[in-house]
Amino acid sequence: MPTPIIATMIGDPSGIGPEICAKAIVDAGQAAGRVLLIGSADAVRQAVDVGTLPLTVHAMTDVSQAVFESGRVNVLDPGSLTIEQIPTGVASAACGKAVGEWIELADTLVASGEAAAAIMAPVNSDALKAAGVVRSIDELQPPDTSLLRISDNLRVLAMSEHLPLREVPQSVTRQRLERLLELLDRSLRSWGIESARIAVAGLNPHASGEEEQEHITPAITAMRAAGLDVTGPISPDAVFRQCVDGQYDVVVSMYHDQGQIPLKTVAFHGACTIYLGLPTLRMSIPQGTAYDIAGKGVADPSSMRAAMTVAARLSAGQGFR
Amino acid sequence: MPTPIIATMIGDPSGIGPEICAKAIVDAGQAAGRVLLIGSADAVRQAVDVGTLPLTVHAMTDVSQAVFESGRVNVLDPGSLTIEQIPTGVASAACGKAVGEWIELADTLVASGEAAAAIMAPVNSDALKAAGVVRSIDELQPPDTSLLRISDNLRVLAMSEHLPLREVPQSVTRQRLERLLELLDRSLRSWGIESARIAVAGLNPHASGEEEQEHITPAITAMRAAGLDVTGPISPDAVFRQCVDGQYDVVVSMYHDQGQIPLKTVAFHGACTIYLGLPTLRMSIPQGTAYDIAGKGVADPSSMRAAMTVAARLSAGQGFR
Repeated sequence: MPTPIIATMIGDPSGIGPEICAKAIVDAGQAAGRVLLIGSADAVRQAVDVGTLPLTVHAMTDVSQAVFESGRVNVLDPGSLTIEQIPTGVASAACGKAVGEWIELADTLVASGEAAAAIMAPVNSDALKAAGVVRSIDELQPPDTSLLRISDNLRVLAMSEHLPLREVPQSVTRQRLERLLELLDRSLRSWGIESARIAVAGLNPHASGEEEQEHITPAITAMRAAGLDVTGPISPDAVFRQCVDGQYDVVVSMYHDQGQIPLKTVAFHGACTIYLGLPTLRMSIPQGTAYDIAGKGVADPSSMRAAMTVAARLSAGQGFR
Repeated sequence: MPTPIIATMIGDPSGIGPEICAKAIVDAGQAAGRVLLIGSADAVRQAVDVGTLPLTVHAMTDVSQAVFESGRVNVLDPGSLTIEQIPTGVASAACGKAVGEWIELADTLVASGEAAAAIMAPVNSDALKAAGVVRSIDELQPPDTSLLRISDNLRVLAMSEHLPLREVPQSVTRQRLERLLELLDRSLRSWGIESARIAVAGLNPHASGEEEQEHITPAITAMRAAGLDVTGPISPDAVFRQCVDGQYDVVVSMYHDQGQIPLKTVAFHGACTIYLGLPTLRMSIPQGTAYDIAGKGVADPSSMRAAMTVAARLSAGQGFR
């Protein structure tokens, strides 16, 4: 089986996307696998020039033209934009429209099996809204997906995203947790992880409360009976440290901030996100277009490098590490 | 003004308390200020012997007998226990009763002004309950106090402790937050910190919700008008990292786990807790009696060292650092 191709959409070309994609390919080396960029080849060339990166950029209109070798970057460029249409550090409808086309192209490649996974570099909500690609940035998250966030050893799957805290307790139900655990287990197996050690955080201090008794513990018991290696509910103030220390592979958090607080406080170098619940692997990174530093060659590529490395491993069935 | 005396109760003598107190005095050196231990001098002597620490232990029955010089440990010992009454690594009513007497003695010294602050080493809830000192370990937290937890740069004052998550939103009221901010400001000033940079965490994801609008923001606005340097509400997943990075001196968290998760996940070496709301400084450390390793000389003294160092600085009006 050949190494899978990872389709990486360069993001809004007016932002840091092209730069971090190019830098990440250099930094990750072999670990990035076979990366196919999707977007403006000119924008990537500009980024390579600014960073004086040891890369030659090859534009193409079909995947079959790609040649994967060290020092060469393949850019699938449908010709959506000329370089004059790409202002540095400014949101534009033209770039928003192009990004919309590139996302569709990435999805098509993954759907046809020509690419094994898709990564999205940072996009700009103003540009996307101006182009009518989305009404709100939340629309970019595919429906019925859950976010698995990865930052080094710390991997957190959230039960919910931007729910007001007062609505969180009723959202923690046995059924939802069981479905999420099944989805996680299925995904992990498809990535070559046969028996992941999954931890479930409690909802209340010291994981001691009504929701733990009535919903969380029964869901864990049922999933253990189904053969999953699930532990919990574990005290929310202990479980994330345990994961950092390697005791678990993934923590299921009961709400957005419960997992985001440790992820953003430990702040390891490089983080990426998987949209769980799609038939194929789709990833993004928790970084914006950073228009203020675009085109200056100073953007940090560590999150894109993490995304490429993780995508290469998971799509080849090699697990997290 | 002479350096203030810090009364440090050695904790349950069957646990690691005597050992970490003695080690911390050696490790902290001058930074610990004038430490007066309260408890069994024999237990402290045993800990010094096991650790072959460069200390001589002096037992006394009155503070006036204390001589503060390098290499000397002063232990105020009311003779509550003989060494035969101190089993290693086992909870006993005798030790629980003695701990109760030592806590009272520490409180008396602080109330009379003979000591400027009190630190409590780890106690055992079984021993205390067996001796009838408390019915539950929660009784050890003085009523109407709030916990300010300190771990290196990260200092977090919690709005509430072990509240079920579903009761948290209604506990976040403008009045309670204003009172807490006033208490914090008063305490900080008494420790020599004239204009602390205080951050208030939001309750909801991205600090965006009803409680922020109706309670948190109005409280912050009122306190700013009163002259406090308060910022917020800040996104809960961002504010703790900002504090770690030195942008704020203290974060006010909206509930127990919101602050405990980052504190225990970053897990700096050494942490201590202040009971805010008492007329004098009272501290403890987030460490248990660790009976399983008691008497072996392997207990980690870093939290006790942090407590002694912080107590010395704050009681002398020298701020956190």
